[in-house]
Amino acid sequence: MTRINVPASKQYYVIVCNNVLNDAGLHLQQVLTPSCKIAIISDSHVWPLYGDKVQNSLELTGFQVVNYVFPAGETSKNATNYLEILNFLAQNQITRSDAIVALGGGVVGDIAGFSAATYLRGIAYVQIPTTLLAMVDSSIGGKTAIDLPVGKNLVGAFYQPDLVLCDPEVLTTLPHDIFTDGCAEVIKYGMLYDAALFDHLMNNGSAFDREKVIIRCIELKRDTVCADEFDTGLRQKLNLGHTIGHSIETLSNYMISHGQAVSTGMAIVTKAAAARNLCERAVLSDLLTVLDKFKLPTVTEYSDQQLFTCALSDKKRAGSSLNLIVPRAIGYCEIIPTPVDMLKSFIQDGL
Amino acid sequence: MTRINVPASKQYYVIVCNNVLNDAGLHLQQVLTPSCKIAIISDSHVWPLYGDKVQNSLELTGFQVVNYVFPAGETSKNATNYLEILNFLAQNQITRSDAIVALGGGVVGDIAGFSAATYLRGIAYVQIPTTLLAMVDSSIGGKTAIDLPVGKNLVGAFYQPDLVLCDPEVLTTLPHDIFTDGCAEVIKYGMLYDAALFDHLMNNGSAFDREKVIIRCIELKRDTVCADEFDTGLRQKLNLGHTIGHSIETLSNYMISHGQAVSTGMAIVTKAAAARNLCERAVLSDLLTVLDKFKLPTVTEYSDQQLFTCALSDKKRAGSSLNLIVPRAIGYCEIIPTPVDMLKSFIQDGL
Repeated sequence: MTRINVPASKQYYVIVCNNVLNDAGLHLQQVLTPSCKIAIISDSHVWPLYGDKVQNSLELTGFQVVNYVFPAGETSKNATNYLEILNFLAQNQITRSDAIVALGGGVVGDIAGFSAATYLRGIAYVQIPTTLLAMVDSSIGGKTAIDLPVGKNLVGAFYQPDLVLCDPEVLTTLPHDIFTDGCAEVIKYGMLYDAALFDHLMNNGSAFDREKVIIRCIELKRDTVCADEFDTGLRQKLNLGHTIGHSIETLSNYMISHGQAVSTGMAIVTKAAAARNLCERAVLSDLLTVLDKFKLPTVTEYSDQQLFTCALSDKKRAGSSLNLIVPRAIGYCEIIPTPVDMLKSFIQDGL
Repeated sequence: MTRINVPASKQYYVIVCNNVLNDAGLHLQQVLTPSCKIAIISDSHVWPLYGDKVQNSLELTGFQVVNYVFPAGETSKNATNYLEILNFLAQNQITRSDAIVALGGGVVGDIAGFSAATYLRGIAYVQIPTTLLAMVDSSIGGKTAIDLPVGKNLVGAFYQPDLVLCDPEVLTTLPHDIFTDGCAEVIKYGMLYDAALFDHLMNNGSAFDREKVIIRCIELKRDTVCADEFDTGLRQKLNLGHTIGHSIETLSNYMISHGQAVSTGMAIVTKAAAARNLCERAVLSDLLTVLDKFKLPTVTEYSDQQLFTCALSDKKRAGSSLNLIVPRAIGYCEIIPTPVDMLKSFIQDGL
């Protein structure tokens, strides 16, 4: 068992351990009010696989459990579903001493976390990520969100969980494409911070050492979050590939997955960076080689105009400028403030 | 001009000054990004009276202004209206360096504040309260909220404004019953903290010294908020009369105003306290005399069972216990944790 300390504005632990789901109750006892009521929020893919296991473990340790299960998929991360969760919590008389458990991938974690952040102005919550993407990225750092029709993650809160439980064992039931989705974020960490991690992925492809890589990515995410919890500086680096990636997701009405979109976004921004001599050509070719090894996409059917228009709604925009994250080398990227009217030509260079 | 410093987790000022609306732009320049876009959120009562004045002042100082005006009344503090505000902000491409101005009473401040807290995970906002209630209470301290069908303020966030502008001059256009509504909260501050303030209200009725009383109430609110920003201890005292008051509001479907409901809630809790020898009979009679002087109600048509059932959804509930705020003397109240199953008999004693 590995226990990673996250000393954010609220201090908490990420526990990485095979089969930790069986002992969920014991771990939650350490951080929640004894015998409190727990609302498990999950989706239609994850609940049938792990719902009973988690619920039984919680009930065995004295918690009262209710559960709310919604249809799997990014389109569920909407305002209507958020309001239904809030009404569910109110109808079940969840109080300030009770808690939410998010059991699922990024969509579940984001919407359950935002519900926890805002119900009664904030109650306790625990993340139990069941996808690679959620384990290495969305479950850590307290970013919670829902989507609006005009764009992804436009509404949310910074709200840290009380505990994160990662069970790498659950990845064995993960559909291959969802696993690959998470690999895009893992590759992102290599591009951003860690050439050795990048090399490990290059050499091993999807046979990489899962537990070791998950722990390394969590540490990198933790370091970034703790340096800039509220995303006003260094944390923005985590958006490598995301400005264009979010546009692709939105334009496809979420038919293209987050990982695929981020993969293409990274490829586009790196191609533009190479074209502008911001990085060596080798950086681009190495990235394309790794993405190809994971069968992740590197091109998009959308036009520069479509991507540009959609990117104008990006959260990272501040007034007439937008912060682009640009690779300078494998393991090192820079935040480059880019005037909105120069963004389109940048995108053109990357297509 | 009086400038009151609020050193909460975010430091900001409350400015109390006659006709300060005319200089809104100059004051906002001190705290917002120069020439940023400002979304004024207001309601159908306030916008026709003060919208142009504020918009002109902001535009004269170089801000770009858009506005969103919704039907006045507590029933607008709902999830649908909240989502419409969010979509309005997104459609107008409000970015992280832009801001919201809440121009109106408590409903406007609460829903605009919650929108500011959650849009893009938080943007700047300024409160311009136009009712007595909003000036002395809801605009200070960062509590933002919307209502759910089962209860009031069940969803929200703690999110401090960047500035509060109070113009006592606007109270001259306030309908008498809305002014009286705010007086209930002013009387509450006297009951909670300040026998001299209570005496001033007893002696002068609604002819009290407005500017002096507003400033005193803001200071008292500021001290309470800064001692317990996140409402886990002393701040709960501000809920004197509110547990039963919120039930009355909810049961009446908000036909009974907040101030009237709080007035009745204070009367009921004090009557119960006197019946149980928790305070002198004189405390009850003094309170009833003052409330009567302001023509505020002290009784309700709802039954103990109705009030009890509704109070179970109260935010102050933690598990099977609920914190009641109970007067012990004029100017001094105590937080008394009350098991839920003893709440009903307490309410019975107060009816």
